[in-house]
Amino acid sequence: MTAGTAGDSGTDTDDDSRPIVYDLAPDCTADDIEVGNYYHAVVNGVVAYGVFVDISDDVSGLVHESNLTGDYDVSDRLLVRLDEIRENGDVAFAEADLDDYRTVAVDHHPTVTPIEALDIGETVTIEATVSQIKQTAGPTVFRCCDATGIVACTAFEDAGVRAYPEVELGDAVRIAGTVEEHEGSPQIEVESLTRLTDEDAERVRAEVDAGLTDRAEPHDVDPLVEWEAFEKLRPDLRDVAQQLRRTVLEGRPIRVRHHADGDGMCASLPVQVALERFIRTVHDDDDAPRHLIKRLPSKAPYYEMEDVTRDLNFALEGRERHGQKLPLLLMLDNGSTEEDVPAYENLAHYDVPIVVVDHHHPDPDAVNDLLDAHVNPYLVDEDYRITTGMMCVELARMIDPEMTDELRHVPAVAGLADRSKAETMADFVDLADEEGYGRDDLVRIGEALDYAAHWLRYSEGKTLVSDVLNVDCDDERRHEELVDFLADRAERDIDRQLAALDPHVEHERLSNDAHLYRVDLDDFAHRFTYPAPGKTTGNLHDRKVEETGDPVITIGYGPDFAVLRSDGVRLDIPEMVAELDEEVVGGGVSGGGHLVVGSIKFVKGMRSEVIESLVEKMADAELDEELSSAAALDHGDD
Amino acid sequence: MTAGTAGDSGTDTDDDSRPIVYDLAPDCTADDIEVGNYYHAVVNGVVAYGVFVDISDDVSGLVHESNLTGDYDVSDRLLVRLDEIRENGDVAFAEADLDDYRTVAVDHHPTVTPIEALDIGETVTIEATVSQIKQTAGPTVFRCCDATGIVACTAFEDAGVRAYPEVELGDAVRIAGTVEEHEGSPQIEVESLTRLTDEDAERVRAEVDAGLTDRAEPHDVDPLVEWEAFEKLRPDLRDVAQQLRRTVLEGRPIRVRHHADGDGMCASLPVQVALERFIRTVHDDDDAPRHLIKRLPSKAPYYEMEDVTRDLNFALEGRERHGQKLPLLLMLDNGSTEEDVPAYENLAHYDVPIVVVDHHHPDPDAVNDLLDAHVNPYLVDEDYRITTGMMCVELARMIDPEMTDELRHVPAVAGLADRSKAETMADFVDLADEEGYGRDDLVRIGEALDYAAHWLRYSEGKTLVSDVLNVDCDDERRHEELVDFLADRAERDIDRQLAALDPHVEHERLSNDAHLYRVDLDDFAHRFTYPAPGKTTGNLHDRKVEETGDPVITIGYGPDFAVLRSDGVRLDIPEMVAELDEEVVGGGVSGGGHLVVGSIKFVKGMRSEVIESLVEKMADAELDEELSSAAALDHGDD
Amino acid sequence: MTAGTAGDSGTDTDDDSRPIVYDLAPDCTADDIEVGNYYHAVVNGVVAYGVFVDISDDVSGLVHESNLTGDYDVSDRLLVRLDEIRENGDVAFAEADLDDYRTVAVDHHPTVTPIEALDIGETVTIEATVSQIKQTAGPTVFRCCDATGIVACTAFEDAGVRAYPEVELGDAVRIAGTVEEHEGSPQIEVESLTRLTDEDAERVRAEVDAGLTDRAEPHDVDPLVEWEAFEKLRPDLRDVAQQLRRTVLEGRPIRVRHHADGDGMCASLPVQVALERFIRTVHDDDDAPRHLIKRLPSKAPYYEMEDVTRDLNFALEGRERHGQKLPLLLMLDNGSTEEDVPAYENLAHYDVPIVVVDHHHPDPDAVNDLLDAHVNPYLVDEDYRITTGMMCVELARMIDPEMTDELRHVPAVAGLADRSKAETMADFVDLADEEGYGRDDLVRIGEALDYAAHWLRYSEGKTLVSDVLNVDCDDERRHEELVDFLADRAERDIDRQLAALDPHVEHERLSNDAHLYRVDLDDFAHRFTYPAPGKTTGNLHDRKVEETGDPVITIGYGPDFAVLRSDGVRLDIPEMVAELDEEVVGGGVSGGGHLVVGSIKFVKGMRSEVIESLVEKMADAELDEELSSAAALDHGDD
Repeated sequence: MTAGTAGDSGTDTDDDSRPIVYDLAPDCTADDIEVGNYYHAVVNGVVAYGVFVDISDDVSGLVHESNLTGDYDVSDRLLVRLDEIRENGDVAFAEADLDDYRTVAVDHHPTVTPIEALDIGETVTIEATVSQIKQTAGPTVFRCCDATGIVACTAFEDAGVRAYPEVELGDAVRIAGTVEEHEGSPQIEVESLTRLTDEDAERVRAEVDAGLTDRAEPHDVDPLVEWEAFEKLRPDLRDVAQQLRRTVLEGRPIRVRHHADGDGMCASLPVQVALERFIRTVHDDDDAPRHLIKRLPSKAPYYEMEDVTRDLNFALEGRERHGQKLPLLLMLDNGSTEEDVPAYENLAHYDVPIVVVDHHHPDPDAVNDLLDAHVNPYLVDEDYRITTGMMCVELARMIDPEMTDELRHVPAVAGLADRSKAETMADFVDLADEEGYGRDDLVRIGEALDYAAHWLRYSEGKTLVSDVLNVDCDDERRHEELVDFLADRAERDIDRQLAALDPHVEHERLSNDAHLYRVDLDDFAHRFTYPAPGKTTGNLHDRKVEETGDPVITIGYGPDFAVLRSDGVRLDIPEMVAELDEEVVGGGVSGGGHLVVGSIKFVKGMRSEVIESLVEKMADAELDEELSSAAALDHGDD
Repeated sequence: MTAGTAGDSGTDTDDDSRPIVYDLAPDCTADDIEVGNYYHAVVNGVVAYGVFVDISDDVSGLVHESNLTGDYDVSDRLLVRLDEIRENGDVAFAEADLDDYRTVAVDHHPTVTPIEALDIGETVTIEATVSQIKQTAGPTVFRCCDATGIVACTAFEDAGVRAYPEVELGDAVRIAGTVEEHEGSPQIEVESLTRLTDEDAERVRAEVDAGLTDRAEPHDVDPLVEWEAFEKLRPDLRDVAQQLRRTVLEGRPIRVRHHADGDGMCASLPVQVALERFIRTVHDDDDAPRHLIKRLPSKAPYYEMEDVTRDLNFALEGRERHGQKLPLLLMLDNGSTEEDVPAYENLAHYDVPIVVVDHHHPDPDAVNDLLDAHVNPYLVDEDYRITTGMMCVELARMIDPEMTDELRHVPAVAGLADRSKAETMADFVDLADEEGYGRDDLVRIGEALDYAAHWLRYSEGKTLVSDVLNVDCDDERRHEELVDFLADRAERDIDRQLAALDPHVEHERLSNDAHLYRVDLDDFAHRFTYPAPGKTTGNLHDRKVEETGDPVITIGYGPDFAVLRSDGVRLDIPEMVAELDEEVVGGGVSGGGHLVVGSIKFVKGMRSEVIESLVEKMADAELDEELSSAAALDHGDD
Repeated sequence: MTAGTAGDSGTDTDDDSRPIVYDLAPDCTADDIEVGNYYHAVVNGVVAYGVFVDISDDVSGLVHESNLTGDYDVSDRLLVRLDEIRENGDVAFAEADLDDYRTVAVDHHPTVTPIEALDIGETVTIEATVSQIKQTAGPTVFRCCDATGIVACTAFEDAGVRAYPEVELGDAVRIAGTVEEHEGSPQIEVESLTRLTDEDAERVRAEVDAGLTDRAEPHDVDPLVEWEAFEKLRPDLRDVAQQLRRTVLEGRPIRVRHHADGDGMCASLPVQVALERFIRTVHDDDDAPRHLIKRLPSKAPYYEMEDVTRDLNFALEGRERHGQKLPLLLMLDNGSTEEDVPAYENLAHYDVPIVVVDHHHPDPDAVNDLLDAHVNPYLVDEDYRITTGMMCVELARMIDPEMTDELRHVPAVAGLADRSKAETMADFVDLADEEGYGRDDLVRIGEALDYAAHWLRYSEGKTLVSDVLNVDCDDERRHEELVDFLADRAERDIDRQLAALDPHVEHERLSNDAHLYRVDLDDFAHRFTYPAPGKTTGNLHDRKVEETGDPVITIGYGPDFAVLRSDGVRLDIPEMVAELDEEVVGGGVSGGGHLVVGSIKFVKGMRSEVIESLVEKMADAELDEELSSAAALDHGDD
């Protein structure tokens, strides 16, 4: 007997001590009755040995003459007590003789079948929440989700006409129907669909929620290397893993936006693959990974208005066309800063949860109110040295621990690509070494990723990136050959760029004794090719640091921007930008970054004023051997 | 008895007074016979009480011995008169004894069922025109259209082989087959398909045409506000409404190109929504709106060669892939000028009707020959103050009057966005006020639309635009929040742009006493962001007019273009452009616009020569307080 | 009796003269037995007139008492000789009385049905190689290819679960199953699928290979005009035709990349149409042409990293989504030079065969190792005068000779568009004249193609190009009107461009007496429109040659590039580029082309240094009347 049926309802009554006689709704079945209870009955047949009575359309039985006091004709009403439900389903009643009683109406509470237990051919009832409503040219398809799984339910009103138009995404519903096989998966042909309200809706929602929470539980994985600092992030990552798994279980799509460089690739690919595999276990549809997850590189170091407009537009069309929920947005190696706020504010008007895993210096005051989750080492008093790739390898393993063997080399690739000076870099490199990746291999994988990212531009490049990173790649030799090819090309292109640039680099010694190198990238660098201005400046700076030693500042400038890198000088770029904006009238100065690495924008016609003022400020800066530009070099204006 | 059957054909004969004996084609049915007529018959059975005769494969009957003069064996021929068609379908003949007669051959004219009256399971004949021919891997699908509706007819020749290859799009056909249910809609499985010719084809075409004309009839709607000037346009708009509805009924796709600004959005979205809703009532396929209407913003103020090439390419592929007709092109808030001619000429080689609704100063001599319809207030001696948004709200209501309640605020948004000085602006604002939109709300909706349009670039952005304009939007609060967010951003970005620009604006007093402001947008404006050069110049100009008062001329120039705005000066920009092109040798000057607002292009290396010459001309211009740049400011080079 | 069955296996035995008794595997059928042979049998029934015996699960028969010596019960074993297989399939045995014998085990060798002979409803066995493996939400679909055809085989393991995961693309397999009809085509529902190994696999592969080779055999076509020089290329083209036909038969997609100009269009469209028609005859699926061939214009004169990255990405996604083989890359009128090497190297890591048909000056040493086929007139001591369009018309005819009538005018269009000075140009023009195309028509078709290509940019523009070239075009008049329109526009735009440019062209007389014309295209040409810099410089040069006569050099330069054209001067541009790169420090000079036509790139800030050095070198060049820039003019930096 299920919860909330007639038998239970007796326990809810107040202290009225009169016996209860149940009045069953016509659609009540054997699920709704209990031996010993009293029922209102109607005679439907008179036989030699007694009368047959109905207590609902579906429940009938004999009152044997031995249990019958009165004399009844068909259609007469009487009270009965349920004496016995035999194994064959026959029901036996006795006439009840009650002087005083009260009547309790009973609704039908069918046996609810969990979605995971659906059998083809059976007639079932499910209780679930609606996660997709797709109107086809024929029936309306409701994808419904209970604590145990997700199933498509087809309801036909009229060709192309929305069935049950009162039902909306997210509603709790009770559906009765027949389980059929559709392309090999169970599917329910709806006979009735009821939108639940009040306590029923709340109960179903709570059950689904509990089930999802349970099934969304991430896996506990052992750290790949011992690293105390990292452990502070683990609970946050675990929450993100749970939210992502839950998002998959609910059938909500996920859109991943990530920084298009080595660390960003190391972060996003493992999570993408882990989620795709999880999606495959949850959803019968082979196309589900394609519909439910989409990874897109961002060219800018933040979420641009144009990108968010396009993403939102795409999501809204998906909702309209496929009746899907709006996606969860997962920002990887991007998304922690104030510059992301406008994009987030745009999304805030829609049901788009936003989760950020990033290691760039965050502006939590600006972004946190707009985010559902924000994992960033700076938020736990660590810093950029814990790269996003390192975090996301753990995240991927929490989602799908079977990926572990494919991922052991990835944190090292991510760390070297982002020049992390983390104490555990050596451990990561050793770990990769055990898998057969030498340090040089790892560096070159990072370079190859960066090079591939450059040419892929806005494309996902799934298989190519998989092959380069050797994650979800089925051909080791191809991986090796590709990395060789791409890393060679990357190195050659960088050499070529620096060779063209070198004669044009201007050198001076600032009054604070720092070496200043500056070069006009628009005039003297190859344009629209690899490496782009940010990376070009970074590479130039590194060479100069090697040549001259600290303190070194490098400025690579174009018509309306400058990329800044420094080592050994106590700069504060964000403050400088603020001052320049004030001092250079009509300069339109903006930008920022970190203390010693960043980029600034200005209007083209004020370039020399802006750069001269900038250099003056740099000459006033104190020297500080500790400060290195390695930090956020991947976020130059590339 | 249907038109054109045997009975009728008698009426067509000349004065030959001999009796007619009909010779039925083998496929004639009871539909083709009439009591009292004579027929050639063949004996197919001899019984005790007479002989059975065939007058076609399908029509047989008894000649009772009482009506029989001769003595016949099976296969003998005789003449009979049709005596009776009984209720059960039995047919009785009498032998006819005619000395002299003439024979008239009769083709089968089946009972034709109107498409709207098709019943599942019946065998029917339809007469229709073909509006789509799609070859699938299995059968060929002909979508056919009669006076009452449209239906898919599937014909199978061999897997993937085109059935009835002689039939082309637009042909008139007679199809016999069985009505089946396909995804809930009726569909005819073709048994025979005949391409009609000559009078039959003409008749069917005329019937379909009459039916379409009838069903395409637009609705008569009361004006939202009383406005005499506007009423001159109503008949033209009514014709466009009829053509658009008819296009939907015929199953021809519609491609909307519109100006990507506030007024353009106010014009195109209501028409798009009205057409989508109408498509849904006409076509069973839920995907039909997606296949049959596509709205695309144009970035340029005219229809560019690149856009038309892409559109044409897309249309031709659609025809090849889906066997669809080429689309009708609907140009909104764009398309009236000579600059659109090359694009139109490109389309003229294909069956692409073009309809323009625009309020920019038209070149009817250049464009009208290329258009199927051209609605423009200037063509009825009105002007830009009747904005395209105002016209299209009426157009949308004529297509689907039930949209009215969603559209009351739209003319005011359109008018304010385009700074219309129409006498009825106050009425439109009042009308919107009744719906709860204050004047400031309306202005901000326009700003939000303009801002969204900027970031959407070439995307349609259906839902986003719906939400901003609050048309076809299901969440009022989201509408409000979005407008707040986008309008705030737009204002902030404009302020930021003008702040950067302001110190660089050069001011001089021309000899005619006009204030001239000029600024190098390439050097001093933020590039590739909102607001673009056209809008930046417009905003700058407005501020200057406010600061200094008339007469004011503003020039915002880039490397190879300049945007011009003026108030209170009698400029004639088109004439100036013509003069400059002649005077500045090798300047490559082109462009134009309206008298006091426009943009010009030139080759980069001749910028200073062009601008100096331009300023000289401006200094010679007379002042005229009446002339304001508000007119067509939305068509600057943005 | 099929190869390798029991009967044959006797012939393989050594000289052991004892009789053989075959021991059939349980799944052996009537296909595996032969009258006269001995078999191990088991009694399965005893009747009055003898015993019934099984020699496999499927093969049973009577040993009549007259042929029976012993006395047997059910399950007893005995030796039998196969006496007779009656027409109705009944089998009669005689007991065999052998003293000494040896046993040979026999595996089931079913009758293998060729794919072209599959009949709906039959149970069959095929042997084939796997050319596509597509996992659907239901079954796994294996597209299999034998010597005679290709067929889809569906295997169901569980919904969305990969059946036979051990089977990979390219494997040889034996499939037993039932032939069903799917959308009108035969399809095999798999009952068993065996991955063949060792000799079996080799045999099947060899059979499929031989069959494909046979069916791939190109057609022998008579040359359109007599041309000895061309005949040297015919065997190479024949090999390419064979490879392309074979690629279609194998179900491997083809991706065509071609130069986006007149000759490139004349080359690629005929081949595309021929292949599409061939695909249609081979594959049942009407969408097959769309899935199996894709033509894309390349804007650059070589295969750019960005393009190859995108193509590879697309191909890998196709493989993942549709289980397709990676495509064959067909480079037309592009692809012969060293600049294509990086792209080819990128593809080398994947199974992407590359075929080049080009007439630009090749670097065979650099590219040939990376190519599967390379057809280029220079490789047979001819030159650019044999245009790619001329070669590809023959190639298309070898693939589908029925195209011949549509193609007679195409070599002339190609030759005139590329200004070929081939001796046979007059013959080609005459040939076209017979089809009604005057010389001027042909030139204008070329111009129209070039103009259309410009605006199509990266789009294929299939129908539009078909209509302009009048190949696969169904409306002669549309062809004529389109050519008129586009060619007029092209001419007008060229005139406009040259008019703007003319006053800015600087003229000087070099010390070697050559006329030097130079012009700053960035400053004085209209940008981002037709004609682009390469074509603009070419047209300017042609006019100057006409005006002044040889020797003439023309330089059109932009911020970081220059386009070079010369007539009558012995330049060696590749050498000049190498020298400049060395001499102009920090100039970043690269580029090349042919001796007297080419383009160079440099960093923007070093433009004047580079161009001055270049002009000095030009002044030192010897004059040579023979040298003309017509050669590779289509490969300027356009």
